[in-house]
Amino acid sequence: MAEHFNDEQREALYRVLHARRDMRHFSGGRVAPSVLQRILEAGHAAPSVGMMQPWRFVRITDGALRRRLVGLIEEERLRTAAAMDGRKDEFLRLKVEGARDCAELLAVVLAPDDGTLFGRRTMPREMALCSAACAIENMWLAARAENLGMGWVSFFDPDDVAALLNCPEGARPIALLCLGPVAAFYDAPMLEQEGWRSRVDLSEIVSENGY
Amino acid sequence: MAEHFNDEQREALYRVLHARRDMRHFSGGRVAPSVLQRILEAGHAAPSVGMMQPWRFVRITDGALRRRLVGLIEEERLRTAAAMDGRKDEFLRLKVEGARDCAELLAVVLAPDDGTLFGRRTMPREMALCSAACAIENMWLAARAENLGMGWVSFFDPDDVAALLNCPEGARPIALLCLGPVAAFYDAPMLEQEGWRSRVDLSEIVSENGY
Repeated sequence: MAEHFNDEQREALYRVLHARRDMRHFSGGRVAPSVLQRILEAGHAAPSVGMMQPWRFVRITDGALRRRLVGLIEEERLRTAAAMDGRKDEFLRLKVEGARDCAELLAVVLAPDDGTLFGRRTMPREMALCSAACAIENMWLAARAENLGMGWVSFFDPDDVAALLNCPEGARPIALLCLGPVAAFYDAPMLEQEGWRSRVDLSEIVSENGY
Repeated sequence: MAEHFNDEQREALYRVLHARRDMRHFSGGRVAPSVLQRILEAGHAAPSVGMMQPWRFVRITDGALRRRLVGLIEEERLRTAAAMDGRKDEFLRLKVEGARDCAELLAVVLAPDDGTLFGRRTMPREMALCSAACAIENMWLAARAENLGMGWVSFFDPDDVAALLNCPEGARPIALLCLGPVAAFYDAPMLEQEGWRSRVDLSEIVSENGY
Protein backbone atom coordinates (compact mmCIF):
# COMPACT_ATOMS: atom_id res chain seq x y z
CA MET A 1 0.00 0.00 0.00
CA ALA A 2 1.21 3.50 0.92
CA GLU A 3 0.75 4.64 -2.63
CA HIS A 4 2.72 7.54 -3.96
CA PHE A 5 0.96 9.56 -6.60
CA ASN A 6 2.86 11.09 -9.49
CA ASP A 7 2.18 14.27 -11.47
CA GLU A 8 0.09 12.50 -14.06
CA GLN A 9 -2.18 10.82 -11.53
CA ARG A 10 -2.54 14.06 -9.57
CA GLU A 11 -3.43 15.88 -12.78
CA ALA A 12 -6.09 13.24 -13.51
CA LEU A 13 -7.67 13.78 -10.09
CA TYR A 14 -7.76 17.56 -10.52
CA ARG A 15 -9.24 17.25 -14.00
CA VAL A 16 -12.04 15.05 -12.70
CA LEU A 17 -12.65 17.39 -9.73
CA HIS A 18 -12.94 20.44 -11.95
CA ALA A 19 -14.94 18.73 -14.73
CA ARG A 20 -17.59 17.35 -12.32
CA ARG A 21 -20.99 18.97 -12.81
CA ASP A 22 -24.41 18.73 -11.24
CA MET A 23 -26.18 17.29 -14.29
CA ARG A 24 -29.88 17.62 -15.07
CA HIS A 25 -29.83 16.63 -18.75
CA PHE A 26 -29.49 12.90 -19.40
CA SER A 27 -29.66 10.86 -22.60
CA GLY A 28 -31.25 7.66 -21.30
CA GLY A 29 -29.17 4.54 -21.93
CA ARG A 30 -27.91 2.37 -19.11
CA VAL A 31 -25.11 2.01 -16.57
CA ALA A 32 -23.22 -1.28 -16.77
CA PRO A 33 -23.46 -3.28 -13.51
CA SER A 34 -19.67 -3.26 -13.04
CA VAL A 35 -19.63 0.54 -13.40
CA LEU A 36 -22.47 0.98 -10.93
CA GLN A 37 -20.62 -1.31 -8.53
CA ARG A 38 -17.45 0.81 -8.76
CA ILE A 39 -19.47 3.97 -8.12
CA LEU A 40 -21.14 2.46 -5.06
CA GLU A 41 -17.78 1.23 -3.78
CA ALA A 42 -16.41 4.75 -4.22
CA GLY A 43 -19.24 6.04 -2.04
CA HIS A 44 -18.60 3.41 0.57
CA ALA A 45 -14.88 4.36 0.64
CA ALA A 46 -15.82 7.76 2.10
CA PRO A 47 -14.67 8.92 5.50
CA SER A 48 -17.19 8.87 8.32
CA VAL A 49 -17.13 10.22 11.82
CA GLY A 50 -16.21 7.46 14.25
CA MET A 51 -16.47 5.06 11.27
CA MET A 52 -20.27 5.22 11.48
CA GLN A 53 -20.72 4.59 7.75
CA PRO A 54 -24.22 6.08 8.07
CA TRP A 55 -25.03 6.04 4.33
CA ARG A 56 -27.58 3.67 2.76
CA PHE A 57 -28.02 3.44 -1.01
CA VAL A 58 -31.40 2.47 -2.43
CA ARG A 59 -31.43 1.64 -6.14
CA ILE A 60 -34.75 2.41 -7.79
CA THR A 61 -35.47 -0.16 -10.49
CA ASP A 62 -39.26 -0.25 -10.24
CA GLY A 63 -40.83 2.03 -12.85
CA ALA A 64 -43.92 2.82 -10.80
CA LEU A 65 -41.80 3.75 -7.78
CA ARG A 66 -39.65 6.02 -9.94
CA ARG A 67 -42.77 7.74 -11.26
CA ARG A 68 -44.01 8.34 -7.74
CA LEU A 69 -40.64 9.83 -6.76
CA VAL A 70 -40.69 12.03 -9.87
CA GLY A 71 -44.15 13.19 -8.77
CA LEU A 72 -42.84 14.19 -5.34
CA ILE A 73 -39.97 16.10 -6.94
CA GLU A 74 -42.36 17.95 -9.23
CA GLU A 75 -44.60 18.89 -6.30
CA GLU A 76 -41.66 20.35 -4.43
CA ARG A 77 -40.42 22.20 -7.50
CA LEU A 78 -43.78 23.96 -7.70
CA ARG A 79 -43.83 24.68 -3.96
CA THR A 80 -40.34 26.19 -4.25
CA ALA A 81 -41.50 28.30 -7.20
CA ALA A 82 -44.46 29.55 -5.17
CA ALA A 83 -42.07 30.58 -2.38
CA MET A 84 -39.86 32.60 -4.76
CA ASP A 85 -40.81 36.21 -5.13
CA GLY A 86 -39.28 38.09 -8.03
CA ARG A 87 -37.55 35.15 -9.67
CA LYS A 88 -40.44 32.70 -9.91
CA ASP A 89 -40.76 32.71 -13.71
CA GLU A 90 -37.01 32.59 -14.18
CA PHE A 91 -36.84 29.64 -11.77
CA LEU A 92 -39.61 27.76 -13.58
CA ARG A 93 -37.70 28.01 -16.85
CA LEU A 94 -34.66 26.22 -15.36
CA LYS A 95 -34.33 22.46 -15.63
CA VAL A 96 -33.69 21.51 -12.03
CA GLU A 97 -33.53 17.72 -12.22
CA GLY A 98 -33.24 14.76 -14.55
CA ALA A 99 -35.08 12.05 -12.61
CA ARG A 100 -37.27 11.03 -15.55
CA ASP A 101 -34.47 10.60 -18.10
CA CYS A 102 -31.48 9.34 -16.15
CA ALA A 103 -30.41 5.70 -16.59
CA GLU A 104 -30.27 5.05 -12.82
CA LEU A 105 -32.04 6.68 -9.92
CA LEU A 106 -30.52 6.11 -6.47
CA ALA A 107 -31.76 7.36 -3.13
CA VAL A 108 -29.21 8.10 -0.43
CA VAL A 109 -30.61 7.73 3.05
CA LEU A 110 -29.02 8.69 6.32
CA ALA A 111 -29.39 5.65 8.58
CA PRO A 112 -31.06 6.00 11.99
CA ASP A 113 -28.63 7.30 14.58
CA ASP A 114 -26.60 4.41 16.02
CA GLY A 115 -25.44 6.41 19.04
CA THR A 116 -21.80 6.81 17.96
CA LEU A 117 -20.11 9.28 20.30
CA PHE A 118 -16.66 9.32 18.69
CA GLY A 119 -16.10 12.73 17.11
CA ARG A 120 -19.74 13.76 17.32
CA ARG A 121 -20.64 14.41 20.93
CA THR A 122 -21.08 18.13 20.21
CA MET A 123 -22.42 17.89 16.62
CA PRO A 124 -24.10 14.49 16.31
CA ARG A 125 -26.53 15.09 13.49
CA GLU A 126 -24.22 17.39 11.58
CA MET A 127 -21.31 14.95 11.53
CA ALA A 128 -23.47 12.01 10.39
CA LEU A 129 -24.86 14.16 7.58
CA CYS A 130 -21.42 15.37 6.57
CA SER A 131 -20.22 11.77 6.34
CA ALA A 132 -23.06 10.83 4.00
CA ALA A 133 -22.35 13.93 1.90
CA CYS A 134 -18.69 12.86 1.52
CA ALA A 135 -19.93 9.51 0.21
CA ILE A 136 -22.08 11.28 -2.37
CA GLU A 137 -19.17 13.47 -3.48
CA ASN A 138 -17.06 10.34 -3.96
CA MET A 139 -19.81 8.83 -6.12
CA TRP A 140 -20.05 12.05 -8.12
CA LEU A 141 -16.35 12.05 -8.90
CA ALA A 142 -16.39 8.33 -9.72
CA ALA A 143 -19.33 8.88 -12.07
CA ARG A 144 -17.50 11.73 -13.81
CA ALA A 145 -14.38 9.61 -14.25
CA GLU A 146 -16.66 6.94 -15.79
CA ASN A 147 -17.84 9.69 -18.19
CA LEU A 148 -21.32 9.53 -16.67
CA GLY A 149 -23.36 12.43 -15.40
CA MET A 150 -24.74 12.67 -11.89
CA GLY A 151 -27.15 15.11 -10.33
CA TRP A 152 -28.10 15.52 -6.67
CA VAL A 153 -31.83 16.23 -6.43
CA SER A 154 -32.94 17.70 -3.10
CA PHE A 155 -36.34 18.92 -4.30
CA PHE A 156 -38.49 16.69 -2.12
CA ASP A 157 -40.09 16.39 1.28
CA PRO A 158 -37.88 13.89 3.10
CA ASP A 159 -40.81 12.45 5.06
CA ASP A 160 -42.69 11.64 1.86
CA VAL A 161 -39.66 9.95 0.31
CA ALA A 162 -39.00 8.06 3.54
CA ALA A 163 -42.55 6.72 3.44
CA LEU A 164 -42.28 5.66 -0.22
CA LEU A 165 -39.02 3.82 0.47
CA ASN A 166 -40.25 2.16 3.66
CA CYS A 167 -37.50 3.77 5.69
CA PRO A 168 -37.36 2.85 9.36
CA GLU A 169 -38.04 5.42 12.08
CA GLY A 170 -35.17 7.90 12.25
CA ALA A 171 -33.83 7.29 8.73
CA ARG A 172 -33.68 10.39 6.57
CA PRO A 173 -33.46 10.52 2.76
CA ILE A 174 -31.08 13.31 1.80
CA ALA A 175 -30.58 12.82 -1.93
CA LEU A 176 -32.11 11.39 -5.05
CA LEU A 177 -29.16 10.82 -7.33
CA CYS A 178 -29.71 10.87 -11.07
CA LEU A 179 -26.96 8.92 -12.81
CA GLY A 180 -26.28 7.98 -16.38
CA PRO A 181 -25.01 8.88 -19.83
CA VAL A 182 -25.31 12.49 -20.94
CA ALA A 183 -25.03 14.01 -24.40
CA ALA A 184 -22.63 16.66 -23.08
CA PHE A 185 -21.33 17.98 -19.79
CA TYR A 186 -21.89 21.63 -18.96
CA ASP A 187 -18.73 23.72 -19.41
CA ALA A 188 -19.57 25.58 -16.18
CA PRO A 189 -22.17 24.95 -13.46
CA MET A 190 -25.57 25.07 -15.14
CA LEU A 191 -26.88 27.72 -12.73
CA GLU A 192 -23.92 29.91 -13.72
CA GLN A 193 -24.42 29.26 -17.45
CA GLU A 194 -28.09 30.19 -17.12
CA GLY A 195 -27.28 33.43 -15.29
CA TRP A 196 -28.95 32.28 -12.07
CA ARG A 197 -25.93 32.77 -9.85
CA SER A 198 -22.17 33.35 -10.09
CA ARG A 199 -19.15 31.68 -8.68
CA VAL A 200 -17.52 33.51 -5.80
CA ASP A 201 -13.81 34.23 -6.11
CA LEU A 202 -11.65 31.97 -3.93
CA SER A 203 -10.06 35.02 -2.30
CA GLU A 204 -13.43 35.93 -0.81
CA ILE A 205 -13.77 32.68 1.08
CA VAL A 206 -10.23 32.22 2.41
CA SER A 207 -8.98 34.18 5.39
CA GLU A 208 -6.21 33.94 7.98
CA ASN A 209 -6.63 33.45 11.73
CA GLY A 210 -10.22 34.65 11.77
CA TYR A 211 -13.42 34.54 9.72
CA MET B 1 -13.97 21.26 -22.28
CA ALA B 2 -16.25 18.19 -22.13
CA GLU B 3 -13.34 16.05 -21.08
CA HIS B 4 -13.40 12.36 -21.74
CA PHE B 5 -11.54 10.30 -19.17
CA ASN B 6 -9.61 7.20 -20.20
CA ASP B 7 -8.90 4.00 -18.24
CA GLU B 8 -5.67 5.30 -16.82
CA GLN B 9 -7.16 8.54 -15.51
CA ARG B 10 -10.14 6.68 -14.07
CA GLU B 11 -7.78 4.25 -12.36
CA ALA B 12 -5.87 7.19 -10.85
CA LEU B 13 -9.10 8.62 -9.40
CA TYR B 14 -10.08 5.29 -7.87
CA ARG B 15 -6.63 4.78 -6.41
CA VAL B 16 -6.76 8.18 -4.73
CA LEU B 17 -10.31 7.56 -3.45
CA HIS B 18 -9.37 4.25 -1.90
CA ALA B 19 -5.99 5.37 -0.53
CA ARG B 20 -7.46 8.45 1.24
CA ARG B 21 -7.28 8.17 5.02
CA ASP B 22 -8.33 10.24 8.00
CA MET B 23 -4.82 10.96 9.28
CA ARG B 24 -3.89 11.77 12.87
CA HIS B 25 -0.11 11.19 12.67
CA PHE B 26 1.85 13.97 10.99
CA SER B 27 5.55 14.56 10.56
CA GLY B 28 5.71 18.33 10.73
CA GLY B 29 7.25 19.96 7.67
CA ARG B 30 5.35 22.40 5.52
CA VAL B 31 2.91 22.63 2.65
CA ALA B 32 4.13 24.63 -0.34
CA PRO B 33 1.90 27.65 -1.08
CA SER B 34 1.12 26.39 -4.60
CA VAL B 35 0.03 23.03 -3.18
CA LEU B 36 -2.16 24.65 -0.54
CA GLN B 37 -3.69 26.81 -3.25
CA ARG B 38 -4.57 23.75 -5.37
CA ILE B 39 -6.17 22.06 -2.35
CA LEU B 40 -8.26 25.15 -1.57
CA GLU B 41 -9.29 25.40 -5.21
CA ALA B 42 -10.32 21.75 -5.12
CA GLY B 43 -12.55 22.53 -2.15
CA HIS B 44 -14.04 25.52 -3.89
CA ALA B 45 -14.81 23.36 -6.97
CA ALA B 46 -17.32 21.39 -4.90
CA PRO B 47 -21.00 21.25 -5.74
CA SER B 48 -23.36 23.33 -3.61
CA VAL B 49 -27.10 23.48 -3.37
CA GLY B 50 -28.42 26.39 -5.40
CA MET B 51 -24.76 27.40 -5.90
CA MET B 52 -24.64 28.76 -2.33
CA GLN B 53 -20.91 28.06 -1.94
CA PRO B 54 -21.43 28.22 1.85
CA TRP B 55 -17.89 27.15 2.80
CA ARG B 56 -15.34 29.49 4.35
CA PHE B 57 -11.73 28.42 4.91
CA VAL B 58 -9.73 29.96 7.74
CA ARG B 59 -6.01 29.25 7.68
CA ILE B 60 -4.47 29.22 11.15
CA THR B 61 -0.96 30.61 11.01
CA ASP B 62 -0.81 32.22 14.45
CA GLY B 63 0.88 29.87 16.92
CA ALA B 64 -1.00 31.14 19.96
CA LEU B 65 -4.32 30.71 18.17
CA ARG B 66 -3.38 27.17 17.18
CA ARG B 67 -2.53 26.38 20.80
CA ARG B 68 -5.89 27.66 21.95
CA LEU B 69 -7.65 25.52 19.34
CA VAL B 70 -5.60 22.50 20.41
CA GLY B 71 -6.72 23.21 23.97
CA LEU B 72 -10.38 23.19 22.94
CA ILE B 73 -9.89 19.89 21.11
CA GLU B 74 -8.25 18.36 24.14
CA GLU B 75 -11.09 19.51 26.42
CA GLU B 76 -13.65 17.91 24.13
CA ARG B 77 -11.61 14.70 23.88
CA LEU B 78 -11.78 14.38 27.66
CA ARG B 79 -15.49 15.21 27.72
CA THR B 80 -16.11 12.53 25.12
CA ALA B 81 -14.07 10.05 27.16
CA ALA B 82 -16.14 10.86 30.23
CA ALA B 83 -19.32 10.17 28.25
CA MET B 84 -18.09 6.75 27.13
CA ASP B 85 -19.01 3.90 29.39
CA GLY B 86 -17.19 0.63 28.85
CA ARG B 87 -14.72 1.82 26.24
CA LYS B 88 -13.32 4.89 27.99
CA ASP B 89 -9.78 3.54 28.53
CA GLU B 90 -9.64 2.08 25.06
CA PHE B 91 -10.78 5.44 23.65
CA LEU B 92 -8.16 7.36 25.60
CA ARG B 93 -5.40 5.20 24.12
CA LEU B 94 -6.39 6.16 20.57
CA LYS B 95 -4.76 9.10 18.84
CA VAL B 96 -7.78 11.04 17.67
CA GLU B 97 -6.22 14.12 16.11
CA GLY B 98 -3.00 15.64 14.86
CA ALA B 99 -3.58 19.34 15.41
CA ARG B 100 -0.30 19.89 17.22
CA ASP B 101 1.95 18.26 14.63
CA CYS B 102 0.37 18.96 11.27
CA ALA B 103 2.02 21.46 8.94
CA GLU B 104 -1.21 23.39 8.32
CA LEU B 105 -4.35 23.78 10.40
CA LEU B 106 -7.45 25.01 8.57
CA ALA B 107 -10.89 25.68 9.98
CA VAL B 108 -13.88 25.14 7.73
CA VAL B 109 -16.83 27.30 8.68
CA LEU B 110 -20.37 27.13 7.35
CA ALA B 111 -21.28 30.71 6.41
CA PRO B 112 -24.40 32.33 7.88
CA ASP B 113 -27.49 31.32 5.95
CA ASP B 114 -27.95 33.55 2.90
CA GLY B 115 -31.59 32.56 2.42
CA THR B 116 -31.06 30.46 -0.72
CA LEU B 117 -34.33 28.62 -1.50
CA PHE B 118 -33.18 26.68 -4.56
CA GLY B 119 -33.04 22.99 -3.69
CA ARG B 120 -33.30 23.56 0.05
CA ARG B 121 -36.78 24.70 0.89
CA THR B 122 -37.44 21.46 2.77
CA MET B 123 -33.93 20.80 4.14
CA PRO B 124 -32.22 24.19 4.42
CA ARG B 125 -29.62 23.50 7.07
CA GLU B 126 -28.91 19.96 5.91
CA MET B 127 -28.23 20.94 2.31
CA ALA B 128 -25.90 23.80 3.27
CA LEU B 129 -23.96 21.44 5.53
CA CYS B 130 -23.79 18.73 2.88
CA SER B 131 -22.35 21.25 0.42
CA ALA B 132 -19.57 22.20 2.83
CA ALA B 133 -18.85 18.52 3.47
CA CYS B 134 -18.44 17.92 -0.27
CA ALA B 135 -15.88 20.72 -0.33
CA ILE B 136 -13.96 19.05 2.48
CA GLU B 137 -14.00 15.68 0.70
CA ASN B 138 -12.60 17.36 -2.41
CA MET B 139 -9.80 18.84 -0.31
CA TRP B 140 -9.11 15.45 1.26
CA LEU B 141 -8.73 13.77 -2.11
CA ALA B 142 -6.60 16.61 -3.43
CA ALA B 143 -4.35 16.35 -0.38
CA ARG B 144 -3.97 12.60 -0.87
CA ALA B 145 -3.07 13.07 -4.53
CA GLU B 146 -0.46 15.59 -3.34
CA ASN B 147 0.85 12.80 -1.06
CA LEU B 148 -0.18 14.80 2.00
CA GLY B 149 -2.24 13.57 4.90
CA MET B 150 -5.44 15.23 6.05
CA GLY B 151 -7.57 14.66 9.11
CA TRP B 152 -11.01 16.07 9.92
CA VAL B 153 -11.15 16.95 13.60
CA SER B 154 -14.67 17.38 14.98
CA PHE B 155 -13.70 17.16 18.65
CA PHE B 156 -14.69 20.68 19.66
CA ASP B 157 -17.56 22.81 20.82
CA PRO B 158 -18.51 24.80 17.71
CA ASP B 159 -19.51 27.86 19.74
CA ASP B 160 -16.08 28.02 21.37
CA VAL B 161 -14.30 27.73 18.02
CA ALA B 162 -16.64 30.32 16.51
CA ALA B 163 -15.72 32.73 19.30
CA LEU B 164 -11.97 32.14 18.86
CA LEU B 165 -12.22 32.74 15.11
CA ASN B 166 -14.45 35.84 15.43
CA CYS B 167 -17.16 34.22 13.38
CA PRO B 168 -20.22 36.35 12.66
CA GLU B 169 -23.61 35.45 14.10
CA GLY B 170 -24.96 32.36 12.38
CA ALA B 171 -21.62 31.03 11.11
CA ARG B 172 -20.79 27.52 12.29
CA PRO B 173 -17.34 25.89 12.38
CA ILE B 174 -17.72 22.26 11.28
CA ALA B 175 -14.14 21.08 10.88
CA LEU B 176 -10.60 21.67 11.94
CA LEU B 177 -8.55 20.19 9.15
CA CYS B 178 -5.06 18.93 9.91
CA LEU B 179 -2.98 18.89 6.74
CA GLY B 180 0.60 18.06 5.98
CA PRO B 181 3.33 15.52 5.36
CA VAL B 182 3.03 12.16 7.07
CA ALA B 183 5.62 9.44 7.59
CA ALA B 184 3.20 6.81 6.31
CA PHE B 185 -0.45 6.47 5.39
CA TYR B 186 -2.55 3.91 7.24
CA ASP B 187 -3.20 0.78 5.14
CA ALA B 188 -6.78 0.75 6.44
CA PRO B 189 -8.82 3.29 8.42
CA MET B 190 -7.00 3.80 11.72
CA LEU B 191 -10.10 2.99 13.77
CA GLU B 192 -10.28 -0.35 11.94
CA GLN B 193 -6.54 -1.03 12.39
CA GLU B 194 -6.87 -0.33 16.10
CA GLY B 195 -9.83 -2.67 16.44
CA TRP B 196 -12.21 0.14 17.38
CA ARG B 197 -14.74 -0.54 14.64
CA SER B 198 -15.08 -2.55 11.41
CA ARG B 199 -16.03 -1.71 7.91
CA VAL B 200 -19.53 -2.77 6.92
CA ASP B 201 -19.84 -4.88 3.79
CA LEU B 202 -21.21 -2.95 0.82
CA SER B 203 -23.99 -5.51 0.40
CA GLU B 204 -25.41 -4.46 3.76
CA ILE B 205 -25.88 -0.86 2.74
CA VAL B 206 -27.27 -1.28 -0.78
CA SER B 207 -30.87 -2.28 -1.39
CA GLU B 208 -33.41 -2.13 -4.19
CA ASN B 209 -36.66 -0.14 -4.22
CA GLY B 210 -36.82 0.18 -0.45
CA TYR B 211 -34.61 0.70 2.57
